[in-house]
Amino acid sequence: MALKLYGYWRSTASYRVRIALNLKQLDYEYIPVHLVDEGGQQHQLPYRTLNPARLVPTLVDDDEDLILHQSLSIIEFLDEKYSRGVALLPRHCLERARVRALAQDLACDVQPLGNLRVLQALKTDFAATPAQQHAWAAHWIERGFSALEQRLSTQSGKYCFDFDVTMADVCLVPQAYNARRFGIDMSRFPLISKIVDNCEQLPAFAQACPESQLDAPAC
Amino acid sequence: MALKLYGYWRSTASYRVRIALNLKQLDYEYIPVHLVDEGGQQHQLPYRTLNPARLVPTLVDDDEDLILHQSLSIIEFLDEKYSRGVALLPRHCLERARVRALAQDLACDVQPLGNLRVLQALKTDFAATPAQQHAWAAHWIERGFSALEQRLSTQSGKYCFDFDVTMADVCLVPQAYNARRFGIDMSRFPLISKIVDNCEQLPAFAQACPESQLDAPAC
Repeated sequence: MALKLYGYWRSTASYRVRIALNLKQLDYEYIPVHLVDEGGQQHQLPYRTLNPARLVPTLVDDDEDLILHQSLSIIEFLDEKYSRGVALLPRHCLERARVRALAQDLACDVQPLGNLRVLQALKTDFAATPAQQHAWAAHWIERGFSALEQRLSTQSGKYCFDFDVTMADVCLVPQAYNARRFGIDMSRFPLISKIVDNCEQLPAFAQACPESQLDAPAC
Repeated sequence: MALKLYGYWRSTASYRVRIALNLKQLDYEYIPVHLVDEGGQQHQLPYRTLNPARLVPTLVDDDEDLILHQSLSIIEFLDEKYSRGVALLPRHCLERARVRALAQDLACDVQPLGNLRVLQALKTDFAATPAQQHAWAAHWIERGFSALEQRLSTQSGKYCFDFDVTMADVCLVPQAYNARRFGIDMSRFPLISKIVDNCEQLPAFAQACPESQLDAPAC
């Protein structure tokens, strides 16, 4: 298969790219990189040669001789290269800007602050307890979701951007999954919750969920 | 003036947008939002109505009735709307993807971890001392720059992407400014240092530097 996705079942950024690949109706080989076992396979060869930042995901496209990192960059690349499936960015530059900004609200201002390496650093540097790590991650999700809920009140429809599924939804659903994991009370965010529900009814989102991946632990 | 940029002199993300506006040869009105004075003007009305995330920058384009946040989204919008000046993204989708990924390495994985609100939270939640705040910010910059230095060894030229100034350089120069502020030994990153030097010789970069802004403190 030409497309190979290196990812981890519970990684929010990997989850985004799985959704995008499904929405674009693209077949791909999924290659798990376990972020915890063996001290983290992302720190080992051969993965760190593919991605020196030692983060997931990485997309390899053998057709293009391409090794690409950063989930948002991967998603826009897939959208620009493949016209099939759902268009993940609107056609008008002003609308594209709004969708990118919503996606970046999550990918720049929420997800990086609560991911595994940051929680590990809080433990190492500040002896953070599991409860303190949990509260830290929850704080940034709640702060990000509060702002996003306000933004969505002026521009959302069935999905983040009107009635079209876009890259903003592709980022929102994994962040909501992560929020539930950290025990966030989602009833405080009714618009986000409604949009997430609408997305999760689509097979492209449902099939990308962490528990359905081959590297998810058995129940 | 149709374009208004709300920003802060030392904010890395505001600095990116100032560079982009200069490279696109666009006039704009700069409206300072002081992130420290009065408990942070970003938390107050009227700014928080413009940007509920209470972060800078925000671009207002009166021609389009547009209020846009997130620096990378703003930069791509300016590049797509205005053909004048420097093209900040390459034409080929594969090359665009590489430039976006480099920009996101900084905008997603470095800058958000060491910005003011995170350093303030470390103090509040973990009683971090100024030295610990400093070490935290420096750690993420060094980690991000180490990965970036490796990536640039296979794809850079005079600038991050070959011999063209792109959005990747627009993100790199402010991050290097921030790194120097945190005392990072830049001799460890010779490719990054060379590219930053090349960029800083261009008036569009030089004129955007924090110390030249109207809200910078007097020397």
